[in-house]
Formats: sequence, structure tokens, C-alpha cells
Amino acid sequence: MASEELLRTHLQELRRGTVVVASLVALRQPDYGYALLQRLTAHGFPVDANTLYPLLRRLAEQGLLTSEWNTQESRPRKFYRTSADGEQVLRRLLDDLAAVQTSVTGLIEGVNR
Amino acid sequence: MASEELLRTHLQELRRGTVVVASLVALRQPDYGYALLQRLTAHGFPVDANTLYPLLRRLAEQGLLTSEWNTQESRPRKFYRTSADGEQVLRRLLDDLAAVQTSVTGLIEGVNR
Repeated sequence: MASEELLRTHLQELRRGTVVVASLVALRQPDYGYALLQRLTAHGFPVDANTLYPLLRRLAEQGLLTSEWNTQESRPRKFYRTSADGEQVLRRLLDDLAAVQTSVTGLIEGVNR
Repeated sequence: MASEELLRTHLQELRRGTVVVASLVALRQPDYGYALLQRLTAHGFPVDANTLYPLLRRLAEQGLLTSEWNTQESRPRKFYRTSADGEQVLRRLLDDLAAVQTSVTGLIEGVNR
């Protein structure tokens, strides 16, 4: 039986790229880190704060997210939003993810034929 | 406009996990490295030899692929095949990939609603 650790490694590797896609999609609607984390989890995409928060900072540094402090509430929070560049990258990633699905389906059918 | 380099980085990150899925699916039917590379490419999953060959060795070391030399042809070739453990890991990865698609679709619809 394959070890749980090995399985976890491969699952993490698969998730690492897709969490970028999920975040860029979700942040078409601006949100702060913790609310995004809850939203992703609610949509069946559980992600660790230690993964998500550094990722948000990295995407903002890359110009794929804009960030803005919301100081209207008692506790100021940094809101992130997918930028025009982010949308452009996102569309390519969504196309690629769909292409991966098509390829995998084709391989499964090709193998079973 | 988002730089091509940035886009490439994110596309590579997305592909890194999925190439494992594609390889394990394809190698339900045994094949040697170069033939697998051609088969993946033909199914719309272009992959570099410098990525694929080390990956095959790694998956074999992890017990997810079995390998066997075929010496019947003039040039001996190492054939890889998805093992029982590999099949077990593959099924979880396929489930996860499907879950990612569902989550992303849900997020897209949730955002647009």
C-alpha cells in the first residue's frame, strides 16, 4: 500500500499550482486573507493560512493582485483584488487547467480502448 | 500586461503536479520514456525530456511505477508501468483534480452571481 506521506506529497504538489487559480478566481470579488481562506474552504478548497497568506503577498508583489487597506471597520484589514494582469494570467491558467482535464480524459480513454 | 515570464512560472507550477497524474494514467499501458513523451505530447500534454525522465525515475523509486528492461528489440529499453500503489495514488489524485475543477467552477459562479 502506498504510504500516506507519499500520497500527501503528490496531493500537495497538485494543489500548489491550483491554489493560485482558486485565489485569482475568488478575488475577482475583493476580500481579506482570512475571509478568502474561509470562502475557499467553503468551496471545497481547504488551504492552510501558512500557505495562503504568503501566496497573497507574492501575487500582490507580482502585480496579479492589488491590495488596499479598509479602515472603515474597527480593525483595519488589507483587501486583495485580482488586477487586470491577474485576470490575464488567470484566463491562461483556466485554459491550461481545462486542457489538462481534456488530456487526462483522452489518456484514460486511449488506455482503456 | 503581465510578463510572459511570470505567466510561464505559474503555468509550470500548475503543470508540475498534473504531469504526475498524466504519467500514471498513461503508464497503465507500459511504455519507455521517449514513447511516453510522444504519447503525452500527442494528447496535448507537451512535456520536456528533462522533466519527464527524472520524474519517471522518482516515481519508480517511490514504488508508483514498476520498471523492466525489454531486450527483445535491438536496443534494450526500460519500460515503465503504473504499479498497484501507483494506481491507488492515481485514483486519489484524479479525485482531487476533479474536486479542484468543481471548486473553481463553484467559485466562478459564486463570484459572478
